[in-house]
Amino acid sequence: MRPITRESVPADAQRARAAKRYGAVRAATEALAAPLSAEDQTVQSMPDVSPAKWHRAHTSWFFETFLLVPSLPGYQVFDPAYGYLFNSYYEAVGARHPRPERGLLSRPGVAEIARYRAHVDAGMTELFATLDEACWTAVAGLAELGLHHEQQHQELLLMDIKHVLSVNPLQPAYRRAAPPPRRAPPPLTWHAFAGGLRQIGHAGAGFAFDNETPRHKIWLEPFRLASRLVTSGDYAEFIAAGGYRRPEFWLSEGWALVQQQGWTAPLYWQQEKDGWSIFTLAGRRPIDPAEPVVHVSFYEADAFARWVGKRLPSEAEWEVAAVEAEVALAGNFADRGVLHPLPARGDGSLEQMVGDAWEWTASPYVAYPGFHPAAGAVGEYNGKFMSNQMVLRGGAAVTPPGHLRLSYRNFFPPASRWAFGGIRLAEDA
Amino acid sequence: MRPITRESVPADAQRARAAKRYGAVRAATEALAAPLSAEDQTVQSMPDVSPAKWHRAHTSWFFETFLLVPSLPGYQVFDPAYGYLFNSYYEAVGARHPRPERGLLSRPGVAEIARYRAHVDAGMTELFATLDEACWTAVAGLAELGLHHEQQHQELLLMDIKHVLSVNPLQPAYRRAAPPPRRAPPPLTWHAFAGGLRQIGHAGAGFAFDNETPRHKIWLEPFRLASRLVTSGDYAEFIAAGGYRRPEFWLSEGWALVQQQGWTAPLYWQQEKDGWSIFTLAGRRPIDPAEPVVHVSFYEADAFARWVGKRLPSEAEWEVAAVEAEVALAGNFADRGVLHPLPARGDGSLEQMVGDAWEWTASPYVAYPGFHPAAGAVGEYNGKFMSNQMVLRGGAAVTPPGHLRLSYRNFFPPASRWAFGGIRLAEDA
Amino acid sequence: MRPITRESVPADAQRARAAKRYGAVRAATEALAAPLSAEDQTVQSMPDVSPAKWHRAHTSWFFETFLLVPSLPGYQVFDPAYGYLFNSYYEAVGARHPRPERGLLSRPGVAEIARYRAHVDAGMTELFATLDEACWTAVAGLAELGLHHEQQHQELLLMDIKHVLSVNPLQPAYRRAAPPPRRAPPPLTWHAFAGGLRQIGHAGAGFAFDNETPRHKIWLEPFRLASRLVTSGDYAEFIAAGGYRRPEFWLSEGWALVQQQGWTAPLYWQQEKDGWSIFTLAGRRPIDPAEPVVHVSFYEADAFARWVGKRLPSEAEWEVAAVEAEVALAGNFADRGVLHPLPARGDGSLEQMVGDAWEWTASPYVAYPGFHPAAGAVGEYNGKFMSNQMVLRGGAAVTPPGHLRLSYRNFFPPASRWAFGGIRLAEDA
Amino acid sequence: MRPITRESVPADAQRARAAKRYGAVRAATEALAAPLSAEDQTVQSMPDVSPAKWHRAHTSWFFETFLLVPSLPGYQVFDPAYGYLFNSYYEAVGARHPRPERGLLSRPGVAEIARYRAHVDAGMTELFATLDEACWTAVAGLAELGLHHEQQHQELLLMDIKHVLSVNPLQPAYRRAAPPPRRAPPPLTWHAFAGGLRQIGHAGAGFAFDNETPRHKIWLEPFRLASRLVTSGDYAEFIAAGGYRRPEFWLSEGWALVQQQGWTAPLYWQQEKDGWSIFTLAGRRPIDPAEPVVHVSFYEADAFARWVGKRLPSEAEWEVAAVEAEVALAGNFADRGVLHPLPARGDGSLEQMVGDAWEWTASPYVAYPGFHPAAGAVGEYNGKFMSNQMVLRGGAAVTPPGHLRLSYRNFFPPASRWAFGGIRLAEDA
Repeated sequence: MRPITRESVPADAQRARAAKRYGAVRAATEALAAPLSAEDQTVQSMPDVSPAKWHRAHTSWFFETFLLVPSLPGYQVFDPAYGYLFNSYYEAVGARHPRPERGLLSRPGVAEIARYRAHVDAGMTELFATLDEACWTAVAGLAELGLHHEQQHQELLLMDIKHVLSVNPLQPAYRRAAPPPRRAPPPLTWHAFAGGLRQIGHAGAGFAFDNETPRHKIWLEPFRLASRLVTSGDYAEFIAAGGYRRPEFWLSEGWALVQQQGWTAPLYWQQEKDGWSIFTLAGRRPIDPAEPVVHVSFYEADAFARWVGKRLPSEAEWEVAAVEAEVALAGNFADRGVLHPLPARGDGSLEQMVGDAWEWTASPYVAYPGFHPAAGAVGEYNGKFMSNQMVLRGGAAVTPPGHLRLSYRNFFPPASRWAFGGIRLAEDA
Repeated sequence: MRPITRESVPADAQRARAAKRYGAVRAATEALAAPLSAEDQTVQSMPDVSPAKWHRAHTSWFFETFLLVPSLPGYQVFDPAYGYLFNSYYEAVGARHPRPERGLLSRPGVAEIARYRAHVDAGMTELFATLDEACWTAVAGLAELGLHHEQQHQELLLMDIKHVLSVNPLQPAYRRAAPPPRRAPPPLTWHAFAGGLRQIGHAGAGFAFDNETPRHKIWLEPFRLASRLVTSGDYAEFIAAGGYRRPEFWLSEGWALVQQQGWTAPLYWQQEKDGWSIFTLAGRRPIDPAEPVVHVSFYEADAFARWVGKRLPSEAEWEVAAVEAEVALAGNFADRGVLHPLPARGDGSLEQMVGDAWEWTASPYVAYPGFHPAAGAVGEYNGKFMSNQMVLRGGAAVTPPGHLRLSYRNFFPPASRWAFGGIRLAEDA
Repeated sequence: MRPITRESVPADAQRARAAKRYGAVRAATEALAAPLSAEDQTVQSMPDVSPAKWHRAHTSWFFETFLLVPSLPGYQVFDPAYGYLFNSYYEAVGARHPRPERGLLSRPGVAEIARYRAHVDAGMTELFATLDEACWTAVAGLAELGLHHEQQHQELLLMDIKHVLSVNPLQPAYRRAAPPPRRAPPPLTWHAFAGGLRQIGHAGAGFAFDNETPRHKIWLEPFRLASRLVTSGDYAEFIAAGGYRRPEFWLSEGWALVQQQGWTAPLYWQQEKDGWSIFTLAGRRPIDPAEPVVHVSFYEADAFARWVGKRLPSEAEWEVAAVEAEVALAGNFADRGVLHPLPARGDGSLEQMVGDAWEWTASPYVAYPGFHPAAGAVGEYNGKFMSNQMVLRGGAAVTPPGHLRLSYRNFFPPASRWAFGGIRLAEDA
Repeated sequence: MRPITRESVPADAQRARAAKRYGAVRAATEALAAPLSAEDQTVQSMPDVSPAKWHRAHTSWFFETFLLVPSLPGYQVFDPAYGYLFNSYYEAVGARHPRPERGLLSRPGVAEIARYRAHVDAGMTELFATLDEACWTAVAGLAELGLHHEQQHQELLLMDIKHVLSVNPLQPAYRRAAPPPRRAPPPLTWHAFAGGLRQIGHAGAGFAFDNETPRHKIWLEPFRLASRLVTSGDYAEFIAAGGYRRPEFWLSEGWALVQQQGWTAPLYWQQEKDGWSIFTLAGRRPIDPAEPVVHVSFYEADAFARWVGKRLPSEAEWEVAAVEAEVALAGNFADRGVLHPLPARGDGSLEQMVGDAWEWTASPYVAYPGFHPAAGAVGEYNGKFMSNQMVLRGGAAVTPPGHLRLSYRNFFPPASRWAFGGIRLAEDA
């Protein structure tokens, strides 16, 4: 990653602002973990999932490893064994505990991890207060990266605990909440965009992950985007039409998964006597036909699009459309507390581009032309995952507010369903 | 199982005694769980292992299902969902949660399970107090079975938490304790027993599991048993002599496991710079050459015996020897608090027959001639496991005191290593 | 194996007889392979199965390795690479090609293997002709072992090619033949045997495998054996009564297999519109209700027995009954050419004890008291498989004539179904 | 696929030409199979590989299913069961035999398949001779597709038999041949290409697969291509420099494969006492440092490029370069008979762009903008594989002559190594 901070704010103010932001982001993590018992925070329900207490520790390890150890004189690591336990995937940093075994660790417990977080927070407070000017410039980018990293893990914590609770026959809620009032399913209209030579990617001031750069030219043919996300009601029609039994809509690997895994509906959907129910962070409840479908794999998104005779947008189409339509970075993010996508208004505007559900694109996750990963261990942050994954755009109802950019590239393997992945249709103009 | 209680004690006294014993056994379970955090009690480190909180709940479910629901008028089940969650393997009782997923359940948490235990205990107290005479006779055997069942799970809880803690890179102890003082490795002598027509199996008054019956005749040739268990020092010599690299000592399936699993020593042994260390419930420490080797599979026990030119005893030989030598039911059981086998005195007597380590026998676990399992769901207790397992005899350092009999038949698959299985040598006379 | 040949026949006659017998057994193997194309002889349909050409080569390798190389001066091995390719499981002889990959070898082809057989046969002819008296005594036992070994592989060749052809959607026959005429299902009666101290195991002159020794005492309670094997019609009733859906009849591991493997009938049975069909070496045809059921696992045999309220015999009961009933070593063996069990006559005698179908016993395959494997590499022949297998007795319709003894112990893992395993019921008297 | 044949050749001549070409392509398949025994043609060494006789049958099935059955009146299918056995992946055509079980089929044998091929050839001859004008126009494209399809299977047959022979410890050759004379390793120079708005994809007359269309605009930045393929000598340096032990060069999934699969060199390389040997279709021999490295996965190609500080070209860069450099469609293809890549001359021209080795590109295999698969079952030919695969360009030493186009898009999963995949380096200008 190559964070870019070229603002002309005075250094002291910058540091104060960074310290304040640090405190806010770290507190947000703890607030998300607060409803969870020690037992809840310990379980790993599949290899993709990490225990909540692991997320709390790993994000602290990131600051300890990349900032405190190299830059805070006299800093004592909390526990040398944590370097092994809480390194996620940084080969350059050393050996690490196998990912599928994170749920086998009862120790350190949640109380110990709270102490670890406090220890790191104290170190970071000292770092913000004492770092001299030259050093600050050098570490400011890493500090910013650490906070964006922690925000990503806030979303992962919610995705992961949803999966953990979902496999429990008791179907416990993360946070009980009344379901939002029902609305009529919103109409779908089409927004046209001209083709031509365009640019995508991050270029301005402000933070961006390295995978959003460099900004570069691409050629687009004219295209149209749907005004809203595909709804649960739309998707239930696909199921009723035999969508999961008809190979003609599916990529070969997707169809193999349908058969091997016995997929008959999105993850968390369950057939009840009187229709489909869905497991949410507020517990299990009937689906709302007006709400966006979510927890589909890329293969399901793609098959649905073929069934209706449309296609998924490319990531370039998505970004160009979002910029040209002047989409604001406001929407149903995690701060709303809903933690589930909400129905569109159906007012004909280009809705739900940000928040609600990550939108699967037709674009494999590869390097932008001219891409170079950041130097050092944090160069492993993004680049090494550039194979066998697809790009998703726009953020979801579990994404922290303030985390998204229109150039933001999320990515998951095409078979993944535990992310909040949804569907926006596109077509050639 | 067919519990046999033909004592002529007055019924009221019997019930009072049963109630008291119930309280003591149930309290012992809680005492064993006391050192464990909520996180510790949640983890399942492999499919064979169950979380500690599951053991606490399952043993309660046993009393609720087989005693309270059928026999206590007006009893309200604590939570109907628990029938699914905490049934271990009783097909006749209904569907159940898959065993390998016990570690995926954060709920119910330890506090809820404590309430469940209290609810069942209140029901049992009422049952003991109110049951009329006729019914008491009918349920007394089941109550006794429930307590022996709970004792078996006390041992399992210790075996299981040992494995859970062992896979943690932090190597935490269940209960710190100073290692016992070192002694010189004890000499080994041989005890001869005559052959002839003998009887084995349970026959007297008092409780026994159904698999210990019926008492029956068997023919034995003269044989000798070693005076003590094989020590860690003995076993280290086997390793040093290439025991794990020489197929000639191994059964074919055992040799396949050596290669597939990469076995080079007993479970929990680790090569250190200056010798072998072992993980115990008191943490990791160097092996003591004088202490019995433990956590070997049947295949390792058998290979060791071949290496020294001896063999394992049959279960009939073991039982006949124990009875003829008038072995007392006293030894290093769980109440000693050591939770690990101790060195023999080496006084030439037939030592360590009970306690310290379960002794692998050469006998597959099959029904005794004329065996019939108990009627009803508890008939699934033992009989249905009579394939692909081997019999172990004599109890171990984690077996509750008062649980063992000389006719007691423990059984594990020959590849199992997480039980406290050790080795006693035999030879033809 | 410890072949026992203590006959007082003059040595020259012995050698001539051995040479003649050698020629006959070797020719029988080739006759069994004759109906198979080069393609048929190459395929391995599961790890348990070996290609037919592998059997032809491996049996030759046995003579080459254990007789020609050590005992025929000047013998040249046919191809040094064959030691690696055609060693089955003799660790003492050296490394070997992995069993599950035998079907990946197109070379050597069938023509080359025919040359290999001829080369070994020439060597053996020379050995028989030239060996001096002292040496002959030493190798006679090994020669005899090699022939019994080859006979075992004749049966394996038939079992294996049956499986290979069965997985082909074309369902080709090994050898077309008209099905035997239908008879009425035979009645079943019971034969009683007294209990007491008996002996089993091989003791006389003549060849036996080491696992049949030593002859030893066992105590038996009085018992009864069914007069005939369980028929396909009997077994179809078990299926119709929900046998594969009712856990109460099954050992725990058997029930797990029923569910994991989706067993609903014996191997090779298939539900047709109008009943069950069965794949035989003569192709697929409807089952004959009067013929013995075959290709069941031990678990199915055991579950069937529980369903009818009976049990399987122990191997001691089987052998004692066969000896006391003076069962002749004649029956439906491979020389009849039927290669499938035939209906009993139902004449009230103890029928089908030999030939037709191997009879699963309730006895795990373990060493007889006092057992010692033969010295040298052939000591691996039997002993190292003494875990997790069950004994079968009596031979089958694919067993070569003259191969069986009443003390013969066949063995397979309890889940195996591709052997010709059937069911004889027993009960306590 | 959407074959495009808009030539203005008279119809009769077209048909005669098609019939002649049909005969030539079909004969080429048989010529490739000629050195293989029945056994060789039966084996499947891994799920990706198909037996040679399967290729011979499947290509015939293609003509039978898509041409003879629908378009030749009175045509009798050779065997109705073959529709199930020899359908590769066409869901629209019906159920099919599972791919990993192709090596379990001994029948139909090679003789039967020769009859099948003759039967189909007779039908096709009749079709070419009798089809009326209107129908001809309709089927000509399918006939052309069938021949290109058969050519693809000619290459697959060679790839697959190479793998089959390679797993045999005897290491047999497909066709013995003297290795080409050694040359000095060729120097590497760079060819620069300007950036700008370009077009790629097929557009002219003549056949192309549907995945090469539509021709479309793309934007390219200036770039350079290496003058030759990476050699075995180059690659051996990467290995010697610890390439397979240093995670910093690898994509995350590639590094996981290195560890799981134990990769230490390209497929077919083997460490000998005095350097590396390689298994070729002419048998095992030492590597030639001057010859192109082949049988690397995309991950290895990508890691090698990172190690030298370069990158792989995009497929657009490759195609633009090939067109601008006026690369001729001539090179080391299968008709040369070498069946292995040859050293470059090192004359500074852009060498080896076609033939020798397929060149891994950095481009995931996705649809070109505006792509629509062909109508009907043949629409499954290409489109449904557009996920988790990478594009390779340029053909290899096992590609039939006349099969390649500069717009040809080959594709394999990034972990595949049994294809003749090699490496050409690129860099930003």
